Amino acid sequence: MDAVTDKATRQYRPPAIPDVELRGFWGERADAVSAKTVHILLDRCAEAGMFDQIDPSRPVPEQRLKFHRREGKESTVTTQMFWDSDVAKALEAAAYAVHRRRDPALEARVDEIIAMFAALQREDGYCNSWYLRMQPGKEWTNLRDCHELYCAGHLMEAAVAYHQATGKRVLLDVMCRYADLIDRKFGWGEDQMQGYCGHEEIELALIKLGREVNEPRYLELAKFFVDVRGQQPHYFDEEAKRRGASPDGFVHGTHEYSQSHKPVREQDRVVGHAVRAMYLYSGMADVATEFNDNSLTAPLETLWADVTQRQMYITGGIGPEEHNEGFSDPYHLPNDTAYAETCASIALAMWASRMLGRGPDREYADVMETAFYNGALSGLSMDGGQFFYENPLESHGHHHRWDWHRCPCCPPNIARAVTSIGTYMYGVADDALAVHLYGASKARFTLGGSAVTIEQETEYPWDGRIKLTIGTDGPARFALSLRLPGWCADPSVTLGGEAVDLSGTEGTGYVTIEREWSDGDVVTLDLPMAVTALRADPRVRADRGRSALTRGPLVYCMEGADNDVTLDTVLLNGGLDKAETVPLPALGDAVGFRLPVTVETHEDWGRALYRTTAPTVTAGQGTFVPYHLWDNREPGEMLVWLRTH
Amino acid sequence: MDAVTDKATRQYRPPAIPDVELRGFWGERADAVSAKTVHILLDRCAEAGMFDQIDPSRPVPEQRLKFHRREGKESTVTTQMFWDSDVAKALEAAAYAVHRRRDPALEARVDEIIAMFAALQREDGYCNSWYLRMQPGKEWTNLRDCHELYCAGHLMEAAVAYHQATGKRVLLDVMCRYADLIDRKFGWGEDQMQGYCGHEEIELALIKLGREVNEPRYLELAKFFVDVRGQQPHYFDEEAKRRGASPDGFVHGTHEYSQSHKPVREQDRVVGHAVRAMYLYSGMADVATEFNDNSLTAPLETLWADVTQRQMYITGGIGPEEHNEGFSDPYHLPNDTAYAETCASIALAMWASRMLGRGPDREYADVMETAFYNGALSGLSMDGGQFFYENPLESHGHHHRWDWHRCPCCPPNIARAVTSIGTYMYGVADDALAVHLYGASKARFTLGGSAVTIEQETEYPWDGRIKLTIGTDGPARFALSLRLPGWCADPSVTLGGEAVDLSGTEGTGYVTIEREWSDGDVVTLDLPMAVTALRADPRVRADRGRSALTRGPLVYCMEGADNDVTLDTVLLNGGLDKAETVPLPALGDAVGFRLPVTVETHEDWGRALYRTTAPTVTAGQGTFVPYHLWDNREPGEMLVWLRTH
Repeated sequence: MDAVTDKATRQYRPPAIPDVELRGFWGERADAVSAKTVHILLDRCAEAGMFDQIDPSRPVPEQRLKFHRREGKESTVTTQMFWDSDVAKALEAAAYAVHRRRDPALEARVDEIIAMFAALQREDGYCNSWYLRMQPGKEWTNLRDCHELYCAGHLMEAAVAYHQATGKRVLLDVMCRYADLIDRKFGWGEDQMQGYCGHEEIELALIKLGREVNEPRYLELAKFFVDVRGQQPHYFDEEAKRRGASPDGFVHGTHEYSQSHKPVREQDRVVGHAVRAMYLYSGMADVATEFNDNSLTAPLETLWADVTQRQMYITGGIGPEEHNEGFSDPYHLPNDTAYAETCASIALAMWASRMLGRGPDREYADVMETAFYNGALSGLSMDGGQFFYENPLESHGHHHRWDWHRCPCCPPNIARAVTSIGTYMYGVADDALAVHLYGASKARFTLGGSAVTIEQETEYPWDGRIKLTIGTDGPARFALSLRLPGWCADPSVTLGGEAVDLSGTEGTGYVTIEREWSDGDVVTLDLPMAVTALRADPRVRADRGRSALTRGPLVYCMEGADNDVTLDTVLLNGGLDKAETVPLPALGDAVGFRLPVTVETHEDWGRALYRTTAPTVTAGQGTFVPYHLWDNREPGEMLVWLRTH
Repeated sequence: MDAVTDKATRQYRPPAIPDVELRGFWGERADAVSAKTVHILLDRCAEAGMFDQIDPSRPVPEQRLKFHRREGKESTVTTQMFWDSDVAKALEAAAYAVHRRRDPALEARVDEIIAMFAALQREDGYCNSWYLRMQPGKEWTNLRDCHELYCAGHLMEAAVAYHQATGKRVLLDVMCRYADLIDRKFGWGEDQMQGYCGHEEIELALIKLGREVNEPRYLELAKFFVDVRGQQPHYFDEEAKRRGASPDGFVHGTHEYSQSHKPVREQDRVVGHAVRAMYLYSGMADVATEFNDNSLTAPLETLWADVTQRQMYITGGIGPEEHNEGFSDPYHLPNDTAYAETCASIALAMWASRMLGRGPDREYADVMETAFYNGALSGLSMDGGQFFYENPLESHGHHHRWDWHRCPCCPPNIARAVTSIGTYMYGVADDALAVHLYGASKARFTLGGSAVTIEQETEYPWDGRIKLTIGTDGPARFALSLRLPGWCADPSVTLGGEAVDLSGTEGTGYVTIEREWSDGDVVTLDLPMAVTALRADPRVRADRGRSALTRGPLVYCMEGADNDVTLDTVLLNGGLDKAETVPLPALGDAVGFRLPVTVETHEDWGRALYRTTAPTVTAGQGTFVPYHLWDNREPGEMLVWLRTH
């Protein structure tokens, strides 16, 4: 037994899509996305006219188009400058779907769209449909508002995904040519632009592309975009003046909106648009990993503490405000008006995963798990056919899933997140493997020069017992780090049936076993899942006097569908020891639980609206379901934070 | 001892202004209004250009004018079609001020304004400055939106007030001529209009005018406006068509906004704009009194129950919504976003006072007292110089009094309410007197044919002991009804030093002493004021798990100025028996109180935003001040409904 708990100094990178085969919980979700969601995504992109904008053989689209909403309502949208990104994310999800299950029709459809981009691409490599088709000649004139490099980034991610999924290189080559152009255009040279995108994304995408094609220039370019951000004179102000516009006319009023108010190494508060912030920090973390850039460590840790300790919902939702789709004041986390965009939780998980690049630490992996299983996954209906954009923690019965959204960023984002979750489960170094997330799956890696398989057998997240079986061609020496989740009070681990000593794991929250592994070695984890009541820091006004119940990695909620009372009249007062898990057949046999509660009644209240005696309470049973599954049945109330005596 | 508690069938009418001389609490407030507020009102009317619109000798005003706000900010308003009403309410308050203390300059100013209206009045009696000056020829074409009869009503009230205050008849005669025109124009006759005003007011004003000049036609006209309201075909729809407009284009979308969705006798839910609703119900109650119209009893009682048992803040504030300045769903009473317009609380008190027209009943008088002392009086700063339009029950430190308001209805309304509160204190019948409100004062009435004075000596509302001394020229037989407030658990009453039997007073909540009174008879009331915690019906979401503290008729709140903690981290948990009253020198020696509370602290919370243990609490002292006095010191938090264990 040779458990080692020192934080590794290795560089951990995510596995590729084919490396991890999802089964069980995430496998079912990936199947729903592959069978249904990706088709919806491409259909809606088509209906919206996105391909009319991209395909140079079609007429330029009209400016206003109709959209479906829930219950047959229609709304119109303008064509959007960020449509390339929506198509790109749909392509990325489709790539994963194509890999998951043979679907020649889908693959042909993807190839057709990729051909449009290939045809669209200009001689010099430029490839943005909005500027080439709708605003020709105006490229690179408004980096602040027009999502130009952001679109490029998402297309690069799609290109990498499709290459990994199918081995096909058409889009990859297109995007390398585009990246080469961007690399010539932007940089510290005198004849280059010292600009950067108002919506971060290109940074993390260049890292991904650079890793895929083994091109250091792309990594350097990512570092440039990180380093140049927020320098003075402010690029967006200078750029506005060059357009003949006033810098003061910026609709969002502050460069905090795009985290360009300061150079990134001077930033210490998480501000502005939530997705932008998370994508920037993701790129910063990637750069820190690839360049061993310690100058980014302190800012990243400070920003991480700011968002997770002061600005994050218990679901991993972030960005409470609608007006900036982002952050406001610390501890301002209203539940019923929470914006908490699906994309923002995904992006938080993306950042967390990249904070693991320099070694396992459950400070990050716990949040990644929380965000994926709660605030992100809530954005997708069980059947993969409907979506949440906002993810409030309380609903009075009027918040429901959409068929589509005017700004269709979340549906493809959750689709690609679900189908690529295997790449978040593991961190792979040359001679080390970190298991960040548990879930039934089979993975294949090269570790210490040997081919290694890891099979996870588990009912996770419904049950905390996990059996990991190692497969090797022959003896393989590597370090295996296993996360001991912070939510679990009493984890136990065995290797070959013998208990592994977990003392000394408090630092990173991972137990590391470094040894020569043999084929058939078995490691088990037992992570008992107790129903647990959590309280919020009293500075969070919305949660005062309330508790949220969790079990394992999941946040639970009450829904009107199970509880025939006004949810906010329910009082928790102990009773957690009497909690009984119950199967939820209407929710795909998810695990819920029931426990005794008291309920305030108004039956005996009398005529007066105000009286001197407190309401009468009656004993009752509360039924709780996983938050991410809410609004999959009839419309009704939902509540996460319950009043607590 | 001959206590009688049967509900009287007499008609009770309010005394005239000269009948009641205010002293003590309300006397001080009336002095502040007379010395300061009325001058501010007339100055602001002048600055706004209102007199430019009214005075026919001046050029017609421009359409946009600047306004002062707090802290020197400026905003612009259009000239307003309802300005006659703002001037009228200012005149009414000035009339009361002129009566309260000799002020020849003020009286001359009022006379000058009255002369403008006299000059403005058309040959046929028409007298609305907006239509005569800004929209000539369009009178009577948009009763729904343009406040035409509403303005007439307020001018009638001003005319009555100035006549009572000074004996001068100029404005009274102008308004009688205008009333005569309206009486010719509107009615059931074939050549008359069956219309009514979108903003009720004319109904109650015609009753007041009819009583003042003893003209039954005005009472009949008031009844007509009550009876015709909401009949089909809908007048506002027909009127819109005659203007060539679509009835569907109504900005408020529903005739519930003006309580004209149904005939009044079919209405059973309080809906729409709060002030409009209250003024309508006031007029209905007046009509019920004057005509002994029992067909109005059931609707009035149903509507009363709806507002007071389902839609009223504990302060007597009503109308939680900004968008319609009015009502929404039952039990929807949010505290921090409460609109609860000052005018609406005043109007609720006006309605309550009129529900007392057919006999004393504390069901109505208790609400009148609550509204005046809390939700209405909060609208005026201690010095009479600043105003609240909205009266929330919770502030995070950003809600403050205004110097003026874009829609300046509340300042003159609270000014006239305070200076005329004597007319609400008593209900006068031929041989009966009801004392609805207590307060240091001296009143003079004719009762049973004799001149009678009633002197109230009391520190009310700071202390519940009241000494009433009767003065007569000789023996006078009349019934004296004294309210035993619902907030008082153990009232006692003496007559000539002997206890009065209060058994059997539960019905109306008044004790009635009918006898032959002699000069110098003394009645005392002792209404012990305990600090009391009230709970809200659990259907009121915003107040769940919370208590509001009251003492006597006053609702109390915590302010940041006295309590150096985040107010919502304070927990009440018993301790009311340890409450100690304290004088509040910075608030005019009002009576506050202190009591032990516990406070949640975040000092020991640790890094994580969420944890399994509840916050630590520390013992503290909470200081409570009367709600109506909040925001008279430095800006800060305020909270009425405190979390309660």
